[in-house]
Amino acid sequence: MDKLLLHVGPTTIKEDVLIAGLENNVGFTSKEFVEALSYSLKGLRYVMGASKSYQPLIIPGGGTSAMESITSLLKPNDKILVVSNGVFGDRWEQIFKRYPVNVKVLRPSPGGYVKPEEVEEEVRKDNYKLITLTHVETSTGVREPVKDVINKIRRYVELIAVDGVSSVGAEEVKAEEWNVDVYLSASQKALGSSAGLGLLLLSPKAVSILDSQDSIAGYYLNLKNWLPVMRAVEEDKAAYFATPPVHVILQLAEAFRLIEKEGIENRIKRHETVASAIRAGLKALGLDIVARRPESYSNTVTGVLLKTIEPQKVLAETVNEGVEFAPGVHPAFKYFRIGHMGWVTPNDAIVAISVIERTLRRLGEPIRFGEGVKAVEEVLSSAR
Amino acid sequence: MDKLLLHVGPTTIKEDVLIAGLENNVGFTSKEFVEALSYSLKGLRYVMGASKSYQPLIIPGGGTSAMESITSLLKPNDKILVVSNGVFGDRWEQIFKRYPVNVKVLRPSPGGYVKPEEVEEEVRKDNYKLITLTHVETSTGVREPVKDVINKIRRYVELIAVDGVSSVGAEEVKAEEWNVDVYLSASQKALGSSAGLGLLLLSPKAVSILDSQDSIAGYYLNLKNWLPVMRAVEEDKAAYFATPPVHVILQLAEAFRLIEKEGIENRIKRHETVASAIRAGLKALGLDIVARRPESYSNTVTGVLLKTIEPQKVLAETVNEGVEFAPGVHPAFKYFRIGHMGWVTPNDAIVAISVIERTLRRLGEPIRFGEGVKAVEEVLSSAR
Amino acid sequence: MDKLLLHVGPTTIKEDVLIAGLENNVGFTSKEFVEALSYSLKGLRYVMGASKSYQPLIIPGGGTSAMESITSLLKPNDKILVVSNGVFGDRWEQIFKRYPVNVKVLRPSPGGYVKPEEVEEEVRKDNYKLITLTHVETSTGVREPVKDVINKIRRYVELIAVDGVSSVGAEEVKAEEWNVDVYLSASQKALGSSAGLGLLLLSPKAVSILDSQDSIAGYYLNLKNWLPVMRAVEEDKAAYFATPPVHVILQLAEAFRLIEKEGIENRIKRHETVASAIRAGLKALGLDIVARRPESYSNTVTGVLLKTIEPQKVLAETVNEGVEFAPGVHPAFKYFRIGHMGWVTPNDAIVAISVIERTLRRLGEPIRFGEGVKAVEEVLSSAR
Amino acid sequence: MDKLLLHVGPTTIKEDVLIAGLENNVGFTSKEFVEALSYSLKGLRYVMGASKSYQPLIIPGGGTSAMESITSLLKPNDKILVVSNGVFGDRWEQIFKRYPVNVKVLRPSPGGYVKPEEVEEEVRKDNYKLITLTHVETSTGVREPVKDVINKIRRYVELIAVDGVSSVGAEEVKAEEWNVDVYLSASQKALGSSAGLGLLLLSPKAVSILDSQDSIAGYYLNLKNWLPVMRAVEEDKAAYFATPPVHVILQLAEAFRLIEKEGIENRIKRHETVASAIRAGLKALGLDIVARRPESYSNTVTGVLLKTIEPQKVLAETVNEGVEFAPGVHPAFKYFRIGHMGWVTPNDAIVAISVIERTLRRLGEPIRFGEGVKAVEEVLSSAR
Repeated sequence: MDKLLLHVGPTTIKEDVLIAGLENNVGFTSKEFVEALSYSLKGLRYVMGASKSYQPLIIPGGGTSAMESITSLLKPNDKILVVSNGVFGDRWEQIFKRYPVNVKVLRPSPGGYVKPEEVEEEVRKDNYKLITLTHVETSTGVREPVKDVINKIRRYVELIAVDGVSSVGAEEVKAEEWNVDVYLSASQKALGSSAGLGLLLLSPKAVSILDSQDSIAGYYLNLKNWLPVMRAVEEDKAAYFATPPVHVILQLAEAFRLIEKEGIENRIKRHETVASAIRAGLKALGLDIVARRPESYSNTVTGVLLKTIEPQKVLAETVNEGVEFAPGVHPAFKYFRIGHMGWVTPNDAIVAISVIERTLRRLGEPIRFGEGVKAVEEVLSSAR
Repeated sequence: MDKLLLHVGPTTIKEDVLIAGLENNVGFTSKEFVEALSYSLKGLRYVMGASKSYQPLIIPGGGTSAMESITSLLKPNDKILVVSNGVFGDRWEQIFKRYPVNVKVLRPSPGGYVKPEEVEEEVRKDNYKLITLTHVETSTGVREPVKDVINKIRRYVELIAVDGVSSVGAEEVKAEEWNVDVYLSASQKALGSSAGLGLLLLSPKAVSILDSQDSIAGYYLNLKNWLPVMRAVEEDKAAYFATPPVHVILQLAEAFRLIEKEGIENRIKRHETVASAIRAGLKALGLDIVARRPESYSNTVTGVLLKTIEPQKVLAETVNEGVEFAPGVHPAFKYFRIGHMGWVTPNDAIVAISVIERTLRRLGEPIRFGEGVKAVEEVLSSAR
Repeated sequence: MDKLLLHVGPTTIKEDVLIAGLENNVGFTSKEFVEALSYSLKGLRYVMGASKSYQPLIIPGGGTSAMESITSLLKPNDKILVVSNGVFGDRWEQIFKRYPVNVKVLRPSPGGYVKPEEVEEEVRKDNYKLITLTHVETSTGVREPVKDVINKIRRYVELIAVDGVSSVGAEEVKAEEWNVDVYLSASQKALGSSAGLGLLLLSPKAVSILDSQDSIAGYYLNLKNWLPVMRAVEEDKAAYFATPPVHVILQLAEAFRLIEKEGIENRIKRHETVASAIRAGLKALGLDIVARRPESYSNTVTGVLLKTIEPQKVLAETVNEGVEFAPGVHPAFKYFRIGHMGWVTPNDAIVAISVIERTLRRLGEPIRFGEGVKAVEEVLSSAR
Repeated sequence: MDKLLLHVGPTTIKEDVLIAGLENNVGFTSKEFVEALSYSLKGLRYVMGASKSYQPLIIPGGGTSAMESITSLLKPNDKILVVSNGVFGDRWEQIFKRYPVNVKVLRPSPGGYVKPEEVEEEVRKDNYKLITLTHVETSTGVREPVKDVINKIRRYVELIAVDGVSSVGAEEVKAEEWNVDVYLSASQKALGSSAGLGLLLLSPKAVSILDSQDSIAGYYLNLKNWLPVMRAVEEDKAAYFATPPVHVILQLAEAFRLIEKEGIENRIKRHETVASAIRAGLKALGLDIVARRPESYSNTVTGVLLKTIEPQKVLAETVNEGVEFAPGVHPAFKYFRIGHMGWVTPNDAIVAISVIERTLRRLGEPIRFGEGVKAVEEVLSSAR
């Protein structure tokens, strides 16, 4: 009767994470809070792959507030290249349009991704201060080969920012090794905590810009205002710029505790297994997915294309069967999305596909009933 | 052994409010979330005193994000008058300085407040688009006579914004009757929920500006982006701009449920009783408070002046005695702050004063030991 | 990663039920407790099918304490007939052997049940004061046709007691219509609350014996001591015999609230669907179950017979796959048990069978891999 | 607004203890449960002062079920001496009267206690198999000098049982050093967990009787049935006699974790301080207490005598002021009880006395208003 939330975030959260938010009587100057924030900053380095020379920041909001906060590194008239594989890639453009900078956007055909060589070609043409990439595009479930892109372009641009909202915690991320300047994410995705926080990791170069220059940024999302708080907290001191979401941070710290216990490699492997099983189940049923090329399949989001039935109808029915999926948001497709991230389990893959096959049969979408779950089981059996 | 959090927000939160955040499997398109947000919007109208013609908005962040979001109503070169009684009044100036507008600030001497006639005098001098007031200045506990100020200036300015961060839920607020254009607050103060949300109520005039004009605002804090979400939700439809802090909103809805059950008038009366009792206790001990004039005493925050002992020492000791107070932040005073808001009870006043008198005696601050609690009891006895 | 508990009780509990136990500051004379106990007593009448003339009692312990409390109705040398289909039927005998009464036991061959006519034959032979039946035998999952038995024997015995530990909340129970004197159960089974309570419903005849006679019962489990408490509570008054498990009762009241919301008929139907689906899955895999005759299949417990692999090995492996089943306890079989009761869902049936088929294949038990889940899906699809 | 529960059990419970009961999916054969029960057994030895040679048992119910379970050590016609200082001492007699044994009771005048030499005199007269003592009599708050009594009588009786329901966790208890055979308690008192469990610690002699002899005990409360479960669990194996209150035991384990963290000596000291402060406050107000002799004052319960006002009226009013006290139960006095045990804090003493003085003044009971809290503060100040 309790439904399973296979949305793109928040998803089903571990009880222990939610329970961490029950701790009463914790204010932003309380010892308990300082510890939780400090611990979470270290956790960010762990899941994003960076040493102490990288500076983590945790700010209110989520993926979008983290994205906009990058304006703290920009000056008027800076040139920016946005590599966009969908709705959330386009969001970078919408943000920058509110500021006095110049933006150019590279886009693939829907369901595809911009190839590393296409990015390289563009950056060699012009003098870009910043390039933004989206590791996993939440609207389509398409993964960009971030590492390969960076290998080709690192020397040509001053700053590289990666939107890891739907990747951090579920895909390999090596911010330092890959030489990324800003890796950002959000609390409610594959890290499996509650929503309310934008998460950032800055390279030494990015930090030094922040320390030494003024920028086009506003006030609340200006990282220059938050940086002293993060530094103080890692020295076990309370500091204040604006009231942080105290209880959401207590929960994030617990999520990081559980992530360390699981081990980030195991966590990525688990996401990979569940994602493969779900895709195998969909294929066995005869359903196509949004991401067109196998090398771009992600561990966190799968878009399911429908031939005849309206997605809204499927979503309304599946929630009654005990699973809540996410609606599609990319205008080019008739689809819905399965979010498989955070604390998702192999048995969730079984339930997801079973509910999809029971529902689609009833609604009349052509599928091979019974084949889906069997295919999921085969993947799970061989994954052990 | 569990401490009492008499901070300026978050403070001690009712368990039922925190527990509302345990509801798992709620995403931003879930029915449960849509209901909670819709209910909270109605709750905002209730506690701020407005009819359906006023538009509530709930955005991520807190008081500061709500303050900055007012840029959504401004154009380049607009003239703004900031009435500042302390640190958080000054914050308006710091925000506006990041934008292409002109700001003038009126300030009283420390511990005082800008008089209505002083504000009137200034607005008559120039052509202000916006004036900002701070209902209760959190840094000093000083209350501005908002209603009186507005009576004197309403005709001279296009927009009036009131920072009700430390007033809404504990002081009389009549946004519509007083003809305020933007009343704003935060979730973790006298509304007694967890931190993570900025709350706004817009007059029809403000909404029409938002609907019809572009502004100097950025992207994430641009109310134009959030407005469609709020409208959809009040029609029971899910809508998306950016992922909201889902569980924090579930908690806020529960806070509003409890507030309605208590009744806003009873809630204000309770805050008044506790605040009076605490001030009586401090006075009986021989301690002075930051707010200089009795008519400006607030129901939510009291700054306690110290003659000899360092505030940090007092804070460190009182937390061991079971009460966590807030540090002072106004540079003009040697003090600490008592936050008495949200779910604060008469017995909390007893405990607060008892802990202060035991601690100060031990540390050597001159006080009249034993007199404080007795004075609190007298106020509580006569308040029934 | 969180496991599913398909044990025979406690099983996976709804979060709202557990959360009801978070209510702090509730003592046994508190208004909140009196309300919860009073509400639970009414709930007992609802799920056991009886009007106000029947007296519910809630005592500490569980099924066994409720069984032993029936001694409150007995006198020395009373004759008792125990109809036992397994371990928990035999428990009646073990209890009565500690008291100065005469017990005779009727038993079927393992996996079977004592037929109504066999019971009739026995009761006509002798002068029994009490006969005890076990509605669903938890050790084998065999259901006794309680209604049919009673029809045949009601006139011959003074008192009829039914152990409904594994039936109440999941099987049809009509205590009053069937003319049962004592129907008993426990909190942690199909009612889906936490363990710690024995539940009883007494006929007017049983109550009058309790009111007018002394008995062989001891002190703590003597219903004569608890009866005044139950009566007082239904009149909204606190009363004391011994401290009740306050928080367990707060949880039980919440379980009853959710049961009423679902409706007892819907609840029974849900159990029936899930039980049928699980049995269909097992059969499709080629596995046999303990209960030999289809008319005795229960809605709550299924014993799964193993041909080659040791049950303990299966249990150890399945818990790693995310489902905890119950060990077998009947010496005649090599088996484990699936508890499908309380808040069990159709998707739980999918997961249970999937985990069993993946595990048994790996361990080498001969099964038809992939057929199980498909069969479950067919039952679920047609059950809608 | 949340009330403080200063009842005699359950009292206000630490959130972390209640939260431990949120752990879902734990059955009685689950690893998590086996660990919690095993940990709690060790905890019992710690708080009762005994080495591994003593056997702890945790059974469903509470103080009364633990008391009755002592019949597991008795044979027909055994002679028992009950030393009773009030209602719960008398309970021993009521229990034994249900069994074929001989009971004699020693009683003091109300508010007093039976002196060690009076007990000695009696045991020398006859051949007692068992003597029962009540460490702190919950109905009067009178403490029996258990250690002194035992010193005088140990050689004359085979078995000594002590009811430590209102002492364990708050008073010095040295079961092994004092040579006690059965020390018993309950989960919801000074150990500060939720209600539902009887706790026992058996000497090697008592265990050997249990192992080698049959007894007059019934079935559910027969320790012979529970002993194998306790032994198995301490070897990390699940075992079954009857379903235990799983979640109540998860909570108890958490309580023991917190108790170890505090340290039992600190815990006893804390109870002593709070109890002294409360008594000083009552005395300053001019109120008398039930326990007549200072050496018998307990750390856990204080009976407050009223001169004019009805206790029920006081209880009804104080609960509205935020504190719930316990009613009196001893027929000789007009009084109510303050339970000060478990997680009670110095600030709770302040609140308790303040609420009493405000309420009694309003109701017209003659007191010295304002003196109570001041006296409490003096004790607390000097106790640091």
